[in-house]
Amino acid sequence: MTPVHTPTDILWVLLSACLVVAMQAGFTCVESGLVRAKNSINVAFKNLIDFCISCALFAVLGFGMMFGPSWGGWIGWDPNAIIEKPSNWVMAFFFFQAAFCGTATTIVSGAVAERMRFSAYCATAVLTSLLIYPVSGHWAWGGALDGQVTGWLGKMGFIDFAGSTVVHSVGGWVSLAAILLMGPRVGRFGPGGRAIEGYNIPMATLGVFLLWVSWFGFNGGSTLALDERVPGIIVNTMLAGATGGLAALALAWAMLRRPVVDRTMNGVLAGLVAITANCHVVTAPSALVIGAVGGIVCVLGMSLLDRLKIDDAVGAVPVHLFAGIWGTMAVALFAHDGAWLPGLTRWDLFLVQLTGVLSIGAYAFVASYASFALINLVLRLRVTAAEERIGLNIAEHGAGSSVLDLIVQMNHQAREGDFSRRVDVEPETEAARIAMFYNGVLDKFQVENDRHKMALKKVAHLANYDTLTGLGNRRLCFEAIKRALARSARTGKMAAVFYVDLDNFKGINDRFGHDAGDQVLREVAKRMSRTVRDTDIVARLGGDEFALVLEDLEDAEQTRIVAKKLLAALAEPIALSNGEVLVTASIGMAFVEPGDTEDASAVLQRADHAMYTAKIGGKGAARSHGEGHDDFVPSL
Amino acid sequence: MTPVHTPTDILWVLLSACLVVAMQAGFTCVESGLVRAKNSINVAFKNLIDFCISCALFAVLGFGMMFGPSWGGWIGWDPNAIIEKPSNWVMAFFFFQAAFCGTATTIVSGAVAERMRFSAYCATAVLTSLLIYPVSGHWAWGGALDGQVTGWLGKMGFIDFAGSTVVHSVGGWVSLAAILLMGPRVGRFGPGGRAIEGYNIPMATLGVFLLWVSWFGFNGGSTLALDERVPGIIVNTMLAGATGGLAALALAWAMLRRPVVDRTMNGVLAGLVAITANCHVVTAPSALVIGAVGGIVCVLGMSLLDRLKIDDAVGAVPVHLFAGIWGTMAVALFAHDGAWLPGLTRWDLFLVQLTGVLSIGAYAFVASYASFALINLVLRLRVTAAEERIGLNIAEHGAGSSVLDLIVQMNHQAREGDFSRRVDVEPETEAARIAMFYNGVLDKFQVENDRHKMALKKVAHLANYDTLTGLGNRRLCFEAIKRALARSARTGKMAAVFYVDLDNFKGINDRFGHDAGDQVLREVAKRMSRTVRDTDIVARLGGDEFALVLEDLEDAEQTRIVAKKLLAALAEPIALSNGEVLVTASIGMAFVEPGDTEDASAVLQRADHAMYTAKIGGKGAARSHGEGHDDFVPSL
Amino acid sequence: MTPVHTPTDILWVLLSACLVVAMQAGFTCVESGLVRAKNSINVAFKNLIDFCISCALFAVLGFGMMFGPSWGGWIGWDPNAIIEKPSNWVMAFFFFQAAFCGTATTIVSGAVAERMRFSAYCATAVLTSLLIYPVSGHWAWGGALDGQVTGWLGKMGFIDFAGSTVVHSVGGWVSLAAILLMGPRVGRFGPGGRAIEGYNIPMATLGVFLLWVSWFGFNGGSTLALDERVPGIIVNTMLAGATGGLAALALAWAMLRRPVVDRTMNGVLAGLVAITANCHVVTAPSALVIGAVGGIVCVLGMSLLDRLKIDDAVGAVPVHLFAGIWGTMAVALFAHDGAWLPGLTRWDLFLVQLTGVLSIGAYAFVASYASFALINLVLRLRVTAAEERIGLNIAEHGAGSSVLDLIVQMNHQAREGDFSRRVDVEPETEAARIAMFYNGVLDKFQVENDRHKMALKKVAHLANYDTLTGLGNRRLCFEAIKRALARSARTGKMAAVFYVDLDNFKGINDRFGHDAGDQVLREVAKRMSRTVRDTDIVARLGGDEFALVLEDLEDAEQTRIVAKKLLAALAEPIALSNGEVLVTASIGMAFVEPGDTEDASAVLQRADHAMYTAKIGGKGAARSHGEGHDDFVPSL
Repeated sequence: MTPVHTPTDILWVLLSACLVVAMQAGFTCVESGLVRAKNSINVAFKNLIDFCISCALFAVLGFGMMFGPSWGGWIGWDPNAIIEKPSNWVMAFFFFQAAFCGTATTIVSGAVAERMRFSAYCATAVLTSLLIYPVSGHWAWGGALDGQVTGWLGKMGFIDFAGSTVVHSVGGWVSLAAILLMGPRVGRFGPGGRAIEGYNIPMATLGVFLLWVSWFGFNGGSTLALDERVPGIIVNTMLAGATGGLAALALAWAMLRRPVVDRTMNGVLAGLVAITANCHVVTAPSALVIGAVGGIVCVLGMSLLDRLKIDDAVGAVPVHLFAGIWGTMAVALFAHDGAWLPGLTRWDLFLVQLTGVLSIGAYAFVASYASFALINLVLRLRVTAAEERIGLNIAEHGAGSSVLDLIVQMNHQAREGDFSRRVDVEPETEAARIAMFYNGVLDKFQVENDRHKMALKKVAHLANYDTLTGLGNRRLCFEAIKRALARSARTGKMAAVFYVDLDNFKGINDRFGHDAGDQVLREVAKRMSRTVRDTDIVARLGGDEFALVLEDLEDAEQTRIVAKKLLAALAEPIALSNGEVLVTASIGMAFVEPGDTEDASAVLQRADHAMYTAKIGGKGAARSHGEGHDDFVPSL
Repeated sequence: MTPVHTPTDILWVLLSACLVVAMQAGFTCVESGLVRAKNSINVAFKNLIDFCISCALFAVLGFGMMFGPSWGGWIGWDPNAIIEKPSNWVMAFFFFQAAFCGTATTIVSGAVAERMRFSAYCATAVLTSLLIYPVSGHWAWGGALDGQVTGWLGKMGFIDFAGSTVVHSVGGWVSLAAILLMGPRVGRFGPGGRAIEGYNIPMATLGVFLLWVSWFGFNGGSTLALDERVPGIIVNTMLAGATGGLAALALAWAMLRRPVVDRTMNGVLAGLVAITANCHVVTAPSALVIGAVGGIVCVLGMSLLDRLKIDDAVGAVPVHLFAGIWGTMAVALFAHDGAWLPGLTRWDLFLVQLTGVLSIGAYAFVASYASFALINLVLRLRVTAAEERIGLNIAEHGAGSSVLDLIVQMNHQAREGDFSRRVDVEPETEAARIAMFYNGVLDKFQVENDRHKMALKKVAHLANYDTLTGLGNRRLCFEAIKRALARSARTGKMAAVFYVDLDNFKGINDRFGHDAGDQVLREVAKRMSRTVRDTDIVARLGGDEFALVLEDLEDAEQTRIVAKKLLAALAEPIALSNGEVLVTASIGMAFVEPGDTEDASAVLQRADHAMYTAKIGGKGAARSHGEGHDDFVPSL
Repeated sequence: MTPVHTPTDILWVLLSACLVVAMQAGFTCVESGLVRAKNSINVAFKNLIDFCISCALFAVLGFGMMFGPSWGGWIGWDPNAIIEKPSNWVMAFFFFQAAFCGTATTIVSGAVAERMRFSAYCATAVLTSLLIYPVSGHWAWGGALDGQVTGWLGKMGFIDFAGSTVVHSVGGWVSLAAILLMGPRVGRFGPGGRAIEGYNIPMATLGVFLLWVSWFGFNGGSTLALDERVPGIIVNTMLAGATGGLAALALAWAMLRRPVVDRTMNGVLAGLVAITANCHVVTAPSALVIGAVGGIVCVLGMSLLDRLKIDDAVGAVPVHLFAGIWGTMAVALFAHDGAWLPGLTRWDLFLVQLTGVLSIGAYAFVASYASFALINLVLRLRVTAAEERIGLNIAEHGAGSSVLDLIVQMNHQAREGDFSRRVDVEPETEAARIAMFYNGVLDKFQVENDRHKMALKKVAHLANYDTLTGLGNRRLCFEAIKRALARSARTGKMAAVFYVDLDNFKGINDRFGHDAGDQVLREVAKRMSRTVRDTDIVARLGGDEFALVLEDLEDAEQTRIVAKKLLAALAEPIALSNGEVLVTASIGMAFVEPGDTEDASAVLQRADHAMYTAKIGGKGAARSHGEGHDDFVPSL
């Protein structure tokens, strides 16, 4: 006996279904708001794709399995339900039921968020909307399309008006199976483990409101007609959500000493789940109580999962499973007399409800747990720890990669210590703001760094250079010789060290005073520097002794030329403030051959000896000294 | 005479109520988008909880106060309205009215955002939905449940179709009372004061659209029946919102020289508020005008509040109060003839409307101001300045604490100047990106810092060490002695200073040359370093004079052993490039006792004297010198 | 023959229209989520204002142009349609159609996002809602208000049920014209060009769901009556969206090797667009196919635009234009027999559909392209490159300026290298977190910097100061004299250099030992420092020679006084650890006059000579030496 469906009834079912579809938006907001930013895209995407999957599959198979002619109350079958000239009632009913299937399916995405692979999640959506939901749904609601009761649970008198168990608990059981199998998120429990904060609570709150409004259709439409029960059902729904939130807030405030957002939000949803099974048979005051208890069940459930180290990313299990069980049992506690199958006592009803809760729970949990184990073998349920760490937005969808790029660049720089480069990102992305700042710090750092370097250089100069003449000192000379030795070995070219001693400096000092002496030394230094190439080193060894280090020489002849030029340069009279002096120098030359194994001091000593030889040979001359390189540059 | 309510009427009221509940989502988006991120969770949470509160309270008491049998037109009473077998009409009507109550209540949350305490706000929600809204609502709408007019304002002919005054202005008055009592947000006015930007304008825009759509139910459903006025009401609502936005945009563009977002959004809402009282009795062209004026009133109102230094965080007062007043008065200006109480002239109507605006305004403002003053005594309305600064997300809900943790760590580091540690946060939170960057900068900084330190060390080395031997110089020796004195006083152990003078160094220099002399000095330095413990200091005081500083000695005997080993080590022949020399040394030893009060130079002088004594006693020997420590180590 | 409109029909149209208006919210979410954060406010604002514009204009003119009495099937005219006592049907119809006009108009905002000027976009909205949409809309749907067919395309049998072409393709054509004229965004194509990521994908996903739900009204309401087709239409809409998303996901996954979010989202929307023209005449299985092909068309279309370097910021053209064309043509492929104008074959229908696609396309594209070219002349379509870079939120609306302020400050600091200042922002804004961090880095940096400076100073001290006495060394003395010369030239005041030589120091060294000598030198240094002003420089030139540099002297007399005090101070006996010594000093004074052109060493030499004179004149005295400044301070 199929009931008559007035246009108003159909309109009501269609509109209710629209609201139920809008739950998808609500779940997307709640779930993407309650996870970390790095996984927000992934969870939103899962919400989108699971609805696509469940719609398509429910149309093709699920609807017929759930509402088709029953095989002994266990499963239906009618693949053509919406294909062969369906009536407008069938279509409206299908639309409503498909939206319900979508709800059951999408509940899972929240619980498994932040760690389940996208492909495995797609398989999960297939599983829920094809294997789990239509089957247990048939048990409770089979025959509803035609106003009959064909499912075994339904026949037994099981009352789950809009699906506290059929929809919400089923979603919760599947969630529980998945999170038990996958284990908690990295960093959630164990040493240093902590609660993970949602990144966009206002969006989650928006989601709660969207769900709340949608629930008016979810529960209100489950009459499948615009009958007189509808307003009361909707009011009960509103009130249970309200007291669910208030009770959860109060309890969480008492437990955690402050008003906690996520527990309150989940409390509202738990209140709504709780009223779902019974909203058509309870009074408004009962609804206030049922909702409040739902909120409390949820808060306690969240704490319980925490204690058991079961990681439900958004609290899907406490909200949909725990409060769903409560709501289903509450039918037996709060339903007005006569609201149930004639012949049953309230206690009978209680047992029937319990049977429904347990049988559907057992089926949903076992079937999904087994399926997940299978999926895990084929597809791997969980992302790697590295992927989990970097976040599923990037790891699975390549989204948010501008920030990733930036981080990679920054890490690279830090490793290299390459301080002069700036990180480069697409302008004005999210990353760009950080990059601009980073570069700003680098700029500032660079400026300061440059100052440090200059100051250090200045100080280092003091240690390596002679104050009077500005030439390198003995120390620097040694290092230059060392370098020359190494370089000669490497390049195969000769080098030479000149030891220059002024011949008559003491006399100048005595005659013209210390200051004139200093003037002479400075002038000599200048002339020596001018005579040699820029790359040659001139040093003052102390007193009136100087040294030259010449590298990259082709032959000894080149040295000879330098010596000549030097002698000539020094021979020029030097103007003092109070007169003019003539200075000559004796030069000792030591050659460095590629094969030499001497140390720097030995080379300098050779030059010293050569200088001594030059000096006793008549001053104002240069002389080399060494194996095979005896040479003489006469005085001018 | 109760009107008949067809199923279509009830459906329309239910659906309209669903839309009105959806306003909660709209307000959540608008308000959380228009505040700063640090308060976004708090304001969203307030939006959620005020709806829970107002639903529950309106069910328990408010509905009966507003629509129960009237006590002289001033207040109703019927606590059982929805409890004792209510008809489906009562339930639908209750649902619609509860949603309205929720709207009036939630308006306040925006105005007081960013500074009102959560607990005080909960009290505010109680106040509005229980004390304020149902009372003044009764004046205007009392009797509506039964199609009668029982409120004194209603009886007088006051027309406020969907609540420009009853809902919106009441919310606005309560808001005004609250913000006057609390004062502006820190940094809003006064020196350096500035407008505060919303952190998520797209979300606020979404909220405006949600509100706009919801308003079709808000106004359209206020017919309480699907009568022929509904389409026109909805069109008027659409048009007034549109011209409200356009007029506000134009005016704000003219005033501020650019298209300003928040004023335009508020302009749309103000247009919607303005049409609310009169949408059932005006033509579409009038709606265009009423909306436009509403937008203008809002923009001017926002500027007025700015000038008066009244800080309304989201512009709730201009939108809901000012435009609400305008809309209520516009009834008298634009209503078509015959739309009002027979017997009244249009001018009478104007006065009646004014009476309604003023009486409801006076009641709402005074009652709420007094209540807030009371709440302030009990609960404190406002958070502390510190809490306001840190933001109510963290201060009140502990939310967003990962970023707080980070900041605390960063501040700690900066204070300590501990540069080597990295900040540690939960990976991949919002904070983690900042932290990763921060650590990157630190890494880079560290690398550069290490370089600086090495360079400095090198330079410092030059100042403290002898270039020839690599030993510490006289300066370092002095410091070592100082340290030894201090350490001896602290540990109660002896220390000793050796003054070592080579006996025949000048001769070596003369005979083998300066370079050989250097070689000898280097060899001596090496041998001395090898002889002593790693912690002992060997220094070259200059020329052929060395010093040793030995710390943590048990007794003088230990010193004697060192002296013996040293003499033996130095006595070994030294190989030169051109021969072999024998060097001996005279050693003077000065002991440092825990009680000594000498300065470093006195200790060194004692050692010097002892060395002199040793030298004149025969060279190649060691001798101590000091009170009670005369000792002698003979030459080998 | 106007059809009868039952209340239920009107209710259905009103509710459907509410859903269509809710599309604005969906578009706002999708578009603002798919652009970069810097343009999110701008695009949301455009979505808001284009709806205001199109509502107002459609009311005033557009509605009459589209549905007024036809001028030969080409355009209608009836400016009074909703003004002169419209029936409730007209109002409901207007509401529905105005929402459609708003949809066509707002499509453009996404395509042109991130570069079109706000004012130019306002003009675009005027153009679309006034010039384009009502005209081509009239061709297809003219007469619908009265259940007639008056447009030329409609008369020809063109079937576009809910506007695949009339609404979506028209929006797509206008979008295409705009983006062709404006060119791609900076950085999108060309060297270094890359895809631009949306900043808030969860919000975009929310938008997709909002659109999907709204589409049930968009398509379902296009029956203009709650007839028996409605449920099937809605189911088709749901299914086509689902397979659109699934097909797009699968194709994009295959093409790009990972599940791509934006293509999947657009695939859902494309499926919805595709079913829009034909949802009333196809079966559910056909809907699955049509949707899937729509998703594929969209993904391929996105790749095509990429290849053609046409930059559509959100994929509006592939979604609305390409899938719209597909959906319109699909009517001819999938419609059940008899669904079209009697007398036409299916092939005729195909041609008619093609005619509709091409004619409306040609009109929309050409008219809008021409108009844009005109708008470009008057208003400039595109923001400047600089504005595009900084983002339209800031450039056009001054929004987000707190972050801008911060960046400006940071850049300024970096340029100045002013390291001591902290950036200053309004506390706890988005900018403040970055600023707090930045300041934290600066603090840390400063601490480390200060350490470096101290270390450097210490090292530098070693280079400039005498270790024994702590006085400046010869080097510092030279610099002090140089400074004195420069300062004297600048201030016109005298300076003086004292050359101080202890008279009998060698004797002390010989008699009391080196250490006593050091003690004497330190004491002398102390006394000299005490005698002179803080600003005067005392240096040890070496051995027992000291120098003083006195600046800012009024006359030579002052010098004389200093010399006297100095001689007196030095004449005091000096206590040694082992006795007491008397030390005298000879002082040579050299004056520096403002006009002097000497160098520092000449000045010091003069002082040296003067000292020598003083010494030979009897020691313990001071004597100046120089042109015109001979002076003598006798020994005490």
